[in-house]
Amino acid sequence: MASFEIPSEQWAQVVEKSGGPVSYKKIPVQQPGPDEVLINVKYSGVCHTDLHAMMGDWPIPTKLPLVGGHEGAGVVVAKGDLVTDLALGDHAGIKWLNGSCLACSFCMQADEPLCPRALLSGYTVDGTFQQYAVAKAAHVARIPKDCDLEAVAPVLCAGITVYKGLKESGARPGQTVAIVGAGGGLGCMAVQYARAMGLHVVGIDGGAEKGESCKALGAAAYVDYMSSADLVQEVKAATPEGLGPHAVLLLAVSERPFQQATEYVRSRGSVVCIGLPAGAFFKAPVFDTVIRMITIKGSYVGNRQDTQEALDFFQRGLVTVPFKTVGLSELQDVYQLMREGKIVGRYVVDTSR
Amino acid sequence: MASFEIPSEQWAQVVEKSGGPVSYKKIPVQQPGPDEVLINVKYSGVCHTDLHAMMGDWPIPTKLPLVGGHEGAGVVVAKGDLVTDLALGDHAGIKWLNGSCLACSFCMQADEPLCPRALLSGYTVDGTFQQYAVAKAAHVARIPKDCDLEAVAPVLCAGITVYKGLKESGARPGQTVAIVGAGGGLGCMAVQYARAMGLHVVGIDGGAEKGESCKALGAAAYVDYMSSADLVQEVKAATPEGLGPHAVLLLAVSERPFQQATEYVRSRGSVVCIGLPAGAFFKAPVFDTVIRMITIKGSYVGNRQDTQEALDFFQRGLVTVPFKTVGLSELQDVYQLMREGKIVGRYVVDTSR
Amino acid sequence: MASFEIPSEQWAQVVEKSGGPVSYKKIPVQQPGPDEVLINVKYSGVCHTDLHAMMGDWPIPTKLPLVGGHEGAGVVVAKGDLVTDLALGDHAGIKWLNGSCLACSFCMQADEPLCPRALLSGYTVDGTFQQYAVAKAAHVARIPKDCDLEAVAPVLCAGITVYKGLKESGARPGQTVAIVGAGGGLGCMAVQYARAMGLHVVGIDGGAEKGESCKALGAAAYVDYMSSADLVQEVKAATPEGLGPHAVLLLAVSERPFQQATEYVRSRGSVVCIGLPAGAFFKAPVFDTVIRMITIKGSYVGNRQDTQEALDFFQRGLVTVPFKTVGLSELQDVYQLMREGKIVGRYVVDTSR
Amino acid sequence: MASFEIPSEQWAQVVEKSGGPVSYKKIPVQQPGPDEVLINVKYSGVCHTDLHAMMGDWPIPTKLPLVGGHEGAGVVVAKGDLVTDLALGDHAGIKWLNGSCLACSFCMQADEPLCPRALLSGYTVDGTFQQYAVAKAAHVARIPKDCDLEAVAPVLCAGITVYKGLKESGARPGQTVAIVGAGGGLGCMAVQYARAMGLHVVGIDGGAEKGESCKALGAAAYVDYMSSADLVQEVKAATPEGLGPHAVLLLAVSERPFQQATEYVRSRGSVVCIGLPAGAFFKAPVFDTVIRMITIKGSYVGNRQDTQEALDFFQRGLVTVPFKTVGLSELQDVYQLMREGKIVGRYVVDTSR
Repeated sequence: MASFEIPSEQWAQVVEKSGGPVSYKKIPVQQPGPDEVLINVKYSGVCHTDLHAMMGDWPIPTKLPLVGGHEGAGVVVAKGDLVTDLALGDHAGIKWLNGSCLACSFCMQADEPLCPRALLSGYTVDGTFQQYAVAKAAHVARIPKDCDLEAVAPVLCAGITVYKGLKESGARPGQTVAIVGAGGGLGCMAVQYARAMGLHVVGIDGGAEKGESCKALGAAAYVDYMSSADLVQEVKAATPEGLGPHAVLLLAVSERPFQQATEYVRSRGSVVCIGLPAGAFFKAPVFDTVIRMITIKGSYVGNRQDTQEALDFFQRGLVTVPFKTVGLSELQDVYQLMREGKIVGRYVVDTSR
Repeated sequence: MASFEIPSEQWAQVVEKSGGPVSYKKIPVQQPGPDEVLINVKYSGVCHTDLHAMMGDWPIPTKLPLVGGHEGAGVVVAKGDLVTDLALGDHAGIKWLNGSCLACSFCMQADEPLCPRALLSGYTVDGTFQQYAVAKAAHVARIPKDCDLEAVAPVLCAGITVYKGLKESGARPGQTVAIVGAGGGLGCMAVQYARAMGLHVVGIDGGAEKGESCKALGAAAYVDYMSSADLVQEVKAATPEGLGPHAVLLLAVSERPFQQATEYVRSRGSVVCIGLPAGAFFKAPVFDTVIRMITIKGSYVGNRQDTQEALDFFQRGLVTVPFKTVGLSELQDVYQLMREGKIVGRYVVDTSR
Repeated sequence: MASFEIPSEQWAQVVEKSGGPVSYKKIPVQQPGPDEVLINVKYSGVCHTDLHAMMGDWPIPTKLPLVGGHEGAGVVVAKGDLVTDLALGDHAGIKWLNGSCLACSFCMQADEPLCPRALLSGYTVDGTFQQYAVAKAAHVARIPKDCDLEAVAPVLCAGITVYKGLKESGARPGQTVAIVGAGGGLGCMAVQYARAMGLHVVGIDGGAEKGESCKALGAAAYVDYMSSADLVQEVKAATPEGLGPHAVLLLAVSERPFQQATEYVRSRGSVVCIGLPAGAFFKAPVFDTVIRMITIKGSYVGNRQDTQEALDFFQRGLVTVPFKTVGLSELQDVYQLMREGKIVGRYVVDTSR
Repeated sequence: MASFEIPSEQWAQVVEKSGGPVSYKKIPVQQPGPDEVLINVKYSGVCHTDLHAMMGDWPIPTKLPLVGGHEGAGVVVAKGDLVTDLALGDHAGIKWLNGSCLACSFCMQADEPLCPRALLSGYTVDGTFQQYAVAKAAHVARIPKDCDLEAVAPVLCAGITVYKGLKESGARPGQTVAIVGAGGGLGCMAVQYARAMGLHVVGIDGGAEKGESCKALGAAAYVDYMSSADLVQEVKAATPEGLGPHAVLLLAVSERPFQQATEYVRSRGSVVCIGLPAGAFFKAPVFDTVIRMITIKGSYVGNRQDTQEALDFFQRGLVTVPFKTVGLSELQDVYQLMREGKIVGRYVVDTSR
């Protein structure tokens, strides 16, 4: 078994107060408890949720001071006495769900994300914007050694989340799924997961450029909400018999796309909401929802099984993620770009600089 | 095989123009086509939908002149050449779904209620407020001879609909379902079906009297929205671990009960909407729906399989329906009571008077 | 709408007595009943079942004299009065299930293949080894106009059957299925359907040549039962974590491969039996089946929904079938090759010669 | 929080060598690890498996010396540092699955019984035939305080196992399940669980007395294999339309009842095997299994969720277990009766004497 020298101090990005900014500084390295591991985080993806955590604008308060980040890929460098299925040197990922009780009504059914005592990386416990992070051993993602740690980082949240949403949609191989926001960061992963799952994709987004990227990734059709005269009809027309897609994945839920989705989704189909705009509502007419037997459901992050499945698709080369890497020290700049809406793919931070 | 004398004329209640009233008069008896049967309707339940059909206030137009009614129980007295699995003298029921194509994408999956070419009794084709009614043989409910035709009539729409809603909810035996409107006509059937399916019921309605009837039918708990200081907390408190019911059946969907249902339903649970108030919308916060992974779905009428299952529960004595019988000639009076909100159980009309 | 001249006589291959041979001769063209269509069969696949039907060696007796065949692709040239969703000139397929009652307990749940009154093409009713064949309109496969009628013929039985088996296996996209007999006629279709459904395939068959064809079709691994020292271990080693495939498709069930499948299938996995060797049994140890929670199930032909789905995969170009075409007049020669075990792909007969 | 005095020594029944007998003697009390609890076992059920463990006649070897027992109900008297959701004084149950890794491919899907590192009470770790037993905190059954510890003990294995089998059968409320061995100890619990789940029961066993007990517990019909002239026909005749039960629960699998079950089960139905006769095989004809689309599956013990559900049915008074209590010191006598086949209900041992 490998052995690692672990420093007592490390570089981290720390949120001192809600609203930010983050400050890049040295902080102590934590020790893992008996059921925990210490991960030497090599790379971490940056997610919109990290910005929400820094700003403190979600209904649930964060810990403070806070080290954010929840898409961290690295190496196991220390572990507690109860940890037998992970060895030092193994590659592992820290995700949004840092830990859960593994014994409540939800954990017993493999719905760990609904555990009332869930620990959330970079939110209720310190996350991956540091060089050494602690996580519950049962929860860290097992990353195969042949996966590139830099490229896999964004799979640990973005990838799992869209994959989970596709599973929750109930769409079967050979059926059609519409993906709203197909041209964005989450969207491009969703299109690839859908294709690898045997689904036919109707991508929906704005602009010709996004249409080209959707089709390059395998979407069967693309509907441009900017130029479409009748989006509902156009989406239906792109599906077998014009009956509409079997499922819709809403990667960013706002009122109008939601309302449209309930109109073009196939009778008996499902509209899956992902994404968490603060304060948003969805609204649908009762009559149509009932006589067309439509299902609307929320999909949160994946459980541990979803995580391993999502990683497996990545490892087999079925999903690739466009990303750009900067140093951990440059995190505040990434947040700035995020606020300005200037990010298309996914940013990854390298904790070594 | 029995043989029946079929008159050329019969008594019926006819809607001559949208808005009503119905006129009680003699009209010709129809002949069944090759895949149809002629049923001598003995009894027919009266449903709110019949009032909507007479008033013409739903988005879809009715045929005119129209014989309403879609809960008709009677005897097969004639049949077409292709009908081999029904014999003259068999007892059969005409329900909302008079017929469907049996070959489209929806019919092929046993979702006949979603067939674009569905025939609707008492709406797009003449229904059961007449002594002799025609229906597609493949669609008439097979009623066992030991079922009372008068008592079974309301099962043919109300019973099937609530049973279907409970199936759609996904709740498993041993789990808890909240029934909103548990004290009404549909509600009392829903409570009984839920009990017979091994579910635990939290009845929700207004007033102490309804609470007593709910409990008498086997509800484990009753929450009175009229007197409750905090309905959401009270419903949760009535469920295991205070986590909320696994499913909610909304027998009449209006905005406030819907919103409450999304709050007290258990995480991962489902809210099933039944009932079709004209012009109503439902509205829910995106954040909670997503992170609690809630499902909202519409449930329409049952398919043929649901019909036979719902009848089977009735035949085994697991469900009884409180009803009051009047003559077919008195139908307009029933509509009057319905408009005034004075009907609690179910009215049945006897076509012989 | 197109109009067609229909001759009163046509060429057919007729089994006069069980044991055969078939005789190529002129017989009258039938008229469709009110719920039937007349199909001008252009091409028909030849299946092992057709040989069984001619030989009369299955437990259920055939009609006599018999026109065999149940993979017929052609054109609708006449139809009964009740048929509204098919037009003259439409392309349609006759499959094993010529018709079913559409009203029994099984048909109501879309399990038409289990209908006790099912009509079987080329077995209990005349099939597709003739130029004009009758079938129930609700049951004929709807073939899109852009599908080649010659190439699509074998999909109508072989394709549907393996696709159904894969659905019945319960394997989800990203999981692994072992296909026993992957190098044969059914097998090569099964590999392609599995791939298109997002499954990873371990092909099992005998000989290096079959291994190459499996891999060319996308199998992730191939195990050669002829050269393998330990087939069970080798199959397990080819799956994630060495836990075995999530499902096994047994395209020809005989005792030894069945026993092996129950050993290498993953715990909680399923072994799906397809194929009907006369008089065969399967046998498994109770202890292992119980503590590993293994499922063993039989899968018969697909229903109408499976049919349309299987055709959809074909139409999208995800599945291709190697076949060889000869004249209908040469059918007896095909049977001869079949008996001698000399057929690898699929034979198709052209009814025009 | 309660505090308990824990002795250093305690009474236990110890298997010193395979083949037995057990010796009643004093042994040290163990200490719980950080993720474990120490339970003061008050009562423990005695199961056939305990006899197998003592005899050492199953394929998997036991630990030695061994304290058997895996249906123990008692009180939490000590716990490790990581245990936060159990308090001293809580009632808890030790079951067959003493612990599992909670992190492998099976545990992640709530299939803990399939965990390759599962700890088995009274088999690979010491069990409940002692006054103080250790178990993994995440795995002990949470027993509500209002459940009688003596009466609930047999639910912890027998109850969970039959309940799990019924869930695995896939039978829905309103459907029919045949229970083979319905008059025995497991059988009487299975009949009650089935009824509480809304299922209709056809009990199958030998003798009129067992028939009466089955019917008293709510079975709709009883078939006596000792007196039946044609068991297959008689079972089918006792089900709707004579089509056979939707599922069969085989509480003891031997060849003839298994073969019969595959004959009388409804097409598309499932035969669930429970019970582990050493060296037994099941055998079925391929042709019928395929064309009737029958499922055969093994069901092992329940997971933690099944456990809590099974207990919930018990707590609600829907299931009662006939048992007889003797002192722990008399365990060898119970084994003797078991070997002689003289036990009908369930024996419970009281660890205080």
